[in-house]
Amino acid sequence: MKFVTARDAEGIFVGIIEEGEKRVLPLNRGENDLPKTLEECIATEGFFEQAISIYQQAKESADEQFINLEAVTLLAPIPRPKKNIFCVGKNYAEHAIEMGSKDDIPEHIIVFTKAPTTVIGPNERVLHHRDMTEQLDYEGELAVVIGKKGKNIKREDALNYVFGYTIINDVTARDLQSKHKQYFIGKSLDTTCPMGPWIVHASALGNPNSLNIETRINHEIRQQSNTNNFIFPVEEIISVLSQGMTLEPGDIIATGTPSGVGKGFKPPRFLKAGDEMAVTIEKIGTLINHIQAN
Amino acid sequence: MKFVTARDAEGIFVGIIEEGEKRVLPLNRGENDLPKTLEECIATEGFFEQAISIYQQAKESADEQFINLEAVTLLAPIPRPKKNIFCVGKNYAEHAIEMGSKDDIPEHIIVFTKAPTTVIGPNERVLHHRDMTEQLDYEGELAVVIGKKGKNIKREDALNYVFGYTIINDVTARDLQSKHKQYFIGKSLDTTCPMGPWIVHASALGNPNSLNIETRINHEIRQQSNTNNFIFPVEEIISVLSQGMTLEPGDIIATGTPSGVGKGFKPPRFLKAGDEMAVTIEKIGTLINHIQAN
Repeated sequence: MKFVTARDAEGIFVGIIEEGEKRVLPLNRGENDLPKTLEECIATEGFFEQAISIYQQAKESADEQFINLEAVTLLAPIPRPKKNIFCVGKNYAEHAIEMGSKDDIPEHIIVFTKAPTTVIGPNERVLHHRDMTEQLDYEGELAVVIGKKGKNIKREDALNYVFGYTIINDVTARDLQSKHKQYFIGKSLDTTCPMGPWIVHASALGNPNSLNIETRINHEIRQQSNTNNFIFPVEEIISVLSQGMTLEPGDIIATGTPSGVGKGFKPPRFLKAGDEMAVTIEKIGTLINHIQAN
Repeated sequence: MKFVTARDAEGIFVGIIEEGEKRVLPLNRGENDLPKTLEECIATEGFFEQAISIYQQAKESADEQFINLEAVTLLAPIPRPKKNIFCVGKNYAEHAIEMGSKDDIPEHIIVFTKAPTTVIGPNERVLHHRDMTEQLDYEGELAVVIGKKGKNIKREDALNYVFGYTIINDVTARDLQSKHKQYFIGKSLDTTCPMGPWIVHASALGNPNSLNIETRINHEIRQQSNTNNFIFPVEEIISVLSQGMTLEPGDIIATGTPSGVGKGFKPPRFLKAGDEMAVTIEKIGTLINHIQAN
């Protein structure tokens, strides 16, 4: 079950992608009391069951309620998160090494954030920010979307707090990241958090720590790994983050990027105007964005 | 002009504190179209002028619209920010030195964030979090509240983007701050961002870079400085943060803490159950909170 936020001539709606990925069913346009945003839907008790029921009725109905995907624009599934996006740093050993040395492999989870103003949807343009950075870089990542409120969550219960999974490209200004010491500024330029194309419900994805992940720049493979290389698996990330800090429905956690970022090459291969970035994660799909052309 | 978010038997309201600080005037309970939250009010064009007009009419009116401050509970002026709180690290040289050495005095602004779930109001209890930290510490700080949307703001225009100023106590778990490298986790335990007691409008405060600031723990002075010791003044913080990143009305920027934090003492003097923390800033007031008792 793939959940989207989409826009057509009638406005923005929450929808489910039909199997085969050709059509989308709007969920909150019919006679029901579902809220306006996917973030609010996720926070609504019983939303998933209600969504399945609406979907099944639509499949059985003679009415044509499905819309061709070509007729809509997919937005980021959560276009405006209610807090910053949580991001785990250096969660793949080979990436930690390419950013420095073996000494950079973390013993404890590293967490920084990206401002909500960074979020854009699939196929939206990432600004080049040429006046601010000469080292714009890509980072393909699995992102966890929290489904219910929780604090001090045990590792063995952690996956029960997940609504689903999506893809994030944690675009980073490397020069700003190192200049300002704490990562926030280098991670929060406008449009540097492409997200989508949809949220795959946790029940459809299974184990999040065993997914192939790949990033291509202009069709060339740059990052290729599997989330079984996580230093800190999803359960541990959720558990550690929630110690003393309440997680809420709609919270988004980017789980870190594998090796192969532009900065890791010698010489570095940073993003250029017009570059296409495509992040593919098994069981989810592909998130494609371009850097603003000259 | 001091703006508050407050609660009484009728619910939560946005108000103005009367001169003398004995009574509060609810702004959004009468016949006007003001939004429900102070954050939304700040984002409303012409809010300040409308607020002054409502206040003046109430002063001239025979109707008794003012409420005694004793009859209300002041909440954080912005109880639930729409994104993380921006925080500047090491913005006073003496604090940078007490946290390490002269090498820790930053050349460029350091920015991290605190989750919106950390915010509490004046007199609310800060949880001790004894299971997570043995090194809970205080940090009294001047906080800037942004009044209008802006990006790539010039230093000389920066103060035009400020709605007003409040006080933040950036309570920090020092052991988690160093264990997790990036500051976010050690800065984001629930209840560790006391804020208030009100927002003083920029027009009533003048130069933000010339204010006495003092923190007392159980009535003993621990921090005593002046914001003229800022390494990066408010104008520069706003300008640097907004380069490539859009600032929005209601955004909150904590400007860093002076020397005298618990970790700076030899031996360190961390917070204990029941401790009273009082942060006073000239032209604003005093923000008092206690650590949860045993």
